[in-house]
Amino acid sequence: MTRLWNDPADFADEMIDGFVAANARYVRRVSGGVVRTTPAPAGRVAVVVGGGSGHYPAFGGLVGAGLADGAAMGNLFASPSTQQIHAVARAAHGGRGVLFSYGNYAGDVLNFDAAQERLRAEGIACETVAVTDDIASASADEIHRRRGIAGDLTVFRSAAGAASAGYDLADVARVARLANDRTRSFGVAFSGCTLPGAPAPLFSVAEGRMAIGLGIHGEPGIDEAEVPTADGLAELLVSRLLAERPDGADGRVVPILNGLGSLKHEEMFVVYRRIAQLLADAGLEVIDPHVGEYCTSFDMAGTSLTLFWLDDELAELWETPVDTPAYRRGSVAPEASGRYTATTAGADADGGEAATAIVPGDPDSQSVARVVVEVVDTVARTVDTHVDELGRMDAIAGDGDHGIGMQRGSHAARAAAHESAAAGAGAATTLARAADAWSDRAGGTSGALWGVILTSVASALGDTGRPDAAGVAAGVAAATRGVMAYGKAELGDKTMVDALVPFSAQLTTAVAGGATLAEAWRSAASAASAAAAATAALLPRMGRARTHGQHSVGTPDPGAHSLALIVTAVGDVLTHHERTPS
Amino acid sequence: MTRLWNDPADFADEMIDGFVAANARYVRRVSGGVVRTTPAPAGRVAVVVGGGSGHYPAFGGLVGAGLADGAAMGNLFASPSTQQIHAVARAAHGGRGVLFSYGNYAGDVLNFDAAQERLRAEGIACETVAVTDDIASASADEIHRRRGIAGDLTVFRSAAGAASAGYDLADVARVARLANDRTRSFGVAFSGCTLPGAPAPLFSVAEGRMAIGLGIHGEPGIDEAEVPTADGLAELLVSRLLAERPDGADGRVVPILNGLGSLKHEEMFVVYRRIAQLLADAGLEVIDPHVGEYCTSFDMAGTSLTLFWLDDELAELWETPVDTPAYRRGSVAPEASGRYTATTAGADADGGEAATAIVPGDPDSQSVARVVVEVVDTVARTVDTHVDELGRMDAIAGDGDHGIGMQRGSHAARAAAHESAAAGAGAATTLARAADAWSDRAGGTSGALWGVILTSVASALGDTGRPDAAGVAAGVAAATRGVMAYGKAELGDKTMVDALVPFSAQLTTAVAGGATLAEAWRSAASAASAAAAATAALLPRMGRARTHGQHSVGTPDPGAHSLALIVTAVGDVLTHHERTPS
Repeated sequence: MTRLWNDPADFADEMIDGFVAANARYVRRVSGGVVRTTPAPAGRVAVVVGGGSGHYPAFGGLVGAGLADGAAMGNLFASPSTQQIHAVARAAHGGRGVLFSYGNYAGDVLNFDAAQERLRAEGIACETVAVTDDIASASADEIHRRRGIAGDLTVFRSAAGAASAGYDLADVARVARLANDRTRSFGVAFSGCTLPGAPAPLFSVAEGRMAIGLGIHGEPGIDEAEVPTADGLAELLVSRLLAERPDGADGRVVPILNGLGSLKHEEMFVVYRRIAQLLADAGLEVIDPHVGEYCTSFDMAGTSLTLFWLDDELAELWETPVDTPAYRRGSVAPEASGRYTATTAGADADGGEAATAIVPGDPDSQSVARVVVEVVDTVARTVDTHVDELGRMDAIAGDGDHGIGMQRGSHAARAAAHESAAAGAGAATTLARAADAWSDRAGGTSGALWGVILTSVASALGDTGRPDAAGVAAGVAAATRGVMAYGKAELGDKTMVDALVPFSAQLTTAVAGGATLAEAWRSAASAASAAAAATAALLPRMGRARTHGQHSVGTPDPGAHSLALIVTAVGDVLTHHERTPS
Repeated sequence: MTRLWNDPADFADEMIDGFVAANARYVRRVSGGVVRTTPAPAGRVAVVVGGGSGHYPAFGGLVGAGLADGAAMGNLFASPSTQQIHAVARAAHGGRGVLFSYGNYAGDVLNFDAAQERLRAEGIACETVAVTDDIASASADEIHRRRGIAGDLTVFRSAAGAASAGYDLADVARVARLANDRTRSFGVAFSGCTLPGAPAPLFSVAEGRMAIGLGIHGEPGIDEAEVPTADGLAELLVSRLLAERPDGADGRVVPILNGLGSLKHEEMFVVYRRIAQLLADAGLEVIDPHVGEYCTSFDMAGTSLTLFWLDDELAELWETPVDTPAYRRGSVAPEASGRYTATTAGADADGGEAATAIVPGDPDSQSVARVVVEVVDTVARTVDTHVDELGRMDAIAGDGDHGIGMQRGSHAARAAAHESAAAGAGAATTLARAADAWSDRAGGTSGALWGVILTSVASALGDTGRPDAAGVAAGVAAATRGVMAYGKAELGDKTMVDALVPFSAQLTTAVAGGATLAEAWRSAASAASAAAAATAALLPRMGRARTHGQHSVGTPDPGAHSLALIVTAVGDVLTHHERTPS
């Protein structure tokens, strides 16, 4: 379990501060994560990685010579936001484009893809290779749905080796895809992990049992069994991976035995002893074996084995020396790994978004902006009230971070809304600033989706005059389309969409039928609540399902429930304002 | 807790096999531990470290260029045996002498000192610096009684830096002593650790509490408190260490925040963030900060902070590049850190003791040798029966390894006795071979002491004729003197000596009074049992005591109890043989 923190909400930020303070010779802090202190020579493709925090040394610990040029570091188990990824990529970019690589999870895909679009729009070439090494997470004919776990390392290292060798962006991406095709992992877990301040583990594994194929955020595995002997575990891991030997592999293989957080190196060495025998028995040539922690899952006890099947090109690139805070191989020239006196903690953040000045709204819109502030206040308060409940719901189907992510997002939105309104912003600007702050601070999938919702509604409010009810309903309809397009979820997928669609439909219908905004909103909120309740009722009946992305197929996430709570609370604010107009 | 093993008794050996298989480019296996695969240039002082296993990366993980030349690797939490240390030192020796350095624990001191005597007798110059960095383990005016914990690293690294710079043995030892004088550590623990196959943790810390100043084998701490915030912990650790700032320290300091096994890097970074601020506030210049695992305590959750106060010489030596399996600093020239195809598991053991041929005993002594075999069989069986009980007793006062150590030793003795007797050895050779196997395989304090006992008795048996009862009693008396001299324990120190002294006295008295050996042995065994029971009765009354070495002052170890069990069982064998002589 986790024992040491200050405010759990600050954990990820303070962790990054301490990490940078301890590793100033390798990394410097920028908005959204870290980049190399000693940048790669100009004219190389920049390799930018990232993902949620809690997986140390992934991802910040892998930034340095011969490996990543930058890492976007999200909140615990939550994707970094689009803004974070974009900012890190800009800071790392050396003029020849950016390769993004990260584990294949829904929230990461969503935010990295959005950042890629922004970079391309700014004229920076960008390619992406999401890592899909976990063979337990989907069948061989659905490789694109597989998760990325410790195999991240081989893909990152191959891409970085190609970049160090001067390959152009297309070739770096080709090598990364080749490495991903040749990387297979399989893991087991003996215990769950407990995030800072959480009252209980995210999930648990019965004493003496192990979950087979469990994901690194607690996504359900494919089976459960008694904990075997060390040799028995080695045999399980090796046999599963040899059954998926890639076509054309010539027998040169890099084994990576990865600890998930609380497994001792001593135990892993006992297991590795047998793995080495089994690989030799299979006639394989073992190259550069790894036994250690490369991608953890907070304090989960468990381990995964990765086999990386080399060809001539990958074998040559594998020789590239690497020197990062947590990972070194070969010998990097001294100038790139010199000694530095540490700085004290604290970021010298740069590379972030320049704050643009606020254009004041007209008096009517400023008045609406004050209602927006009150609405955002209410949203934050509602999330605070339900934060534990949302976390618990999410822990059943996902990674348990929904409550804390919503809290970080809504608090940031509240601060931004107050600041904007105080500076005289109109309603649209006030809500758009809140939207941007929400998605930036919350990260993850829900952060990105709430950013889309608030931005869409903001567009309908304008910075002049007072919006009418039909305009607001149109904004909500646009938000619904945006969420469905962005999150690639349909009605019935048991996500936030299941509550948002009936909410929007009822709002539009009621407004069209002549209801006031508050009346229409309240009836729409009832529809959303009913839909969310139907979704939530499914939770206790869930078994272990095959998974893809961060949530199990067919298992609901708590997004519908949090949406219903929020629109209900907002309905009360709107009702109060219709009765006592400002 | 520990989850992965095959046979717990094989854990340490299999761990070393796997460690070597995964790190063949750094280390090769020799009898007793590991030495560098790429030896240091000839003509340098060899730095040999070591200690019990379960502290990874200490000690094998610290062998490589710029750090240790060899590591003697004992059983879990048990000192390596004299034979192991001697063998590793011989394999590592490069012609200019050996510096031994290790944490200051009774079993390690005993075995390293004995190995040092053997090396000196063989003409190899040898010096020793035991590390005493743990300020919680004794007061400032008893620094020599302090334990060694994560500060091992700074002493080893300073000594190795001096050796790399070509210093002679006296100067390497001087630098190591200087580094030890300038290294201070202080730690806390949140949970105990569970050795492979053990039914329960070695000790426990109540949920939400932390033990302050706890030792790395569960030796009692000095206080207990609520788990503070991360910042609160940083403040505790820094304030304790600044209160013991060494005389003459100029303010340059290397901080080492060490994880004890199950603490996440993320948590340590949050704590380090505040440590860096506090050190800066104190006007100190932070050099080369370390946050990671350097000396663990199996799967204990906890952390220690070490401050290493540099002077000009230490600062310069600190720049020496290091490249080992678990620890790298600076940039070592490529030839010393090249890539190797891993060997499969298994030792290419060398440097060990050459087996000498057995000289047959005469028929009478061969007949006595068969009794010796039966006695050793009985000893092994008795230990098997009581192994859990001995472990539990030891866990109260010590590190819980007594049962497993006795088991490894007695099983090895049994195999050696059978082999010797089958080869026609007389009684003395059979028992002497058993003694050597016991101390080599068991390691630790009890292994060394049982080696002394069996060797002393063996000398009294001879390889010709049948020994008389007075001869056996004289052998036991010699064993008693040997144990007291070797273990530096007196009657009343609540060790094995408390049972051995009355056993020997009663045996001598009864034999002198005309009793047969079996009669005398049985009455002596009764005296030993009574004494052991008096010692064991103290166990439940123990509180948290200040500690030194591996056991608390004033708390009994289970050596008296295991001695009583063994001599009682041996009495039955002797009685049977007197009644039905062979």
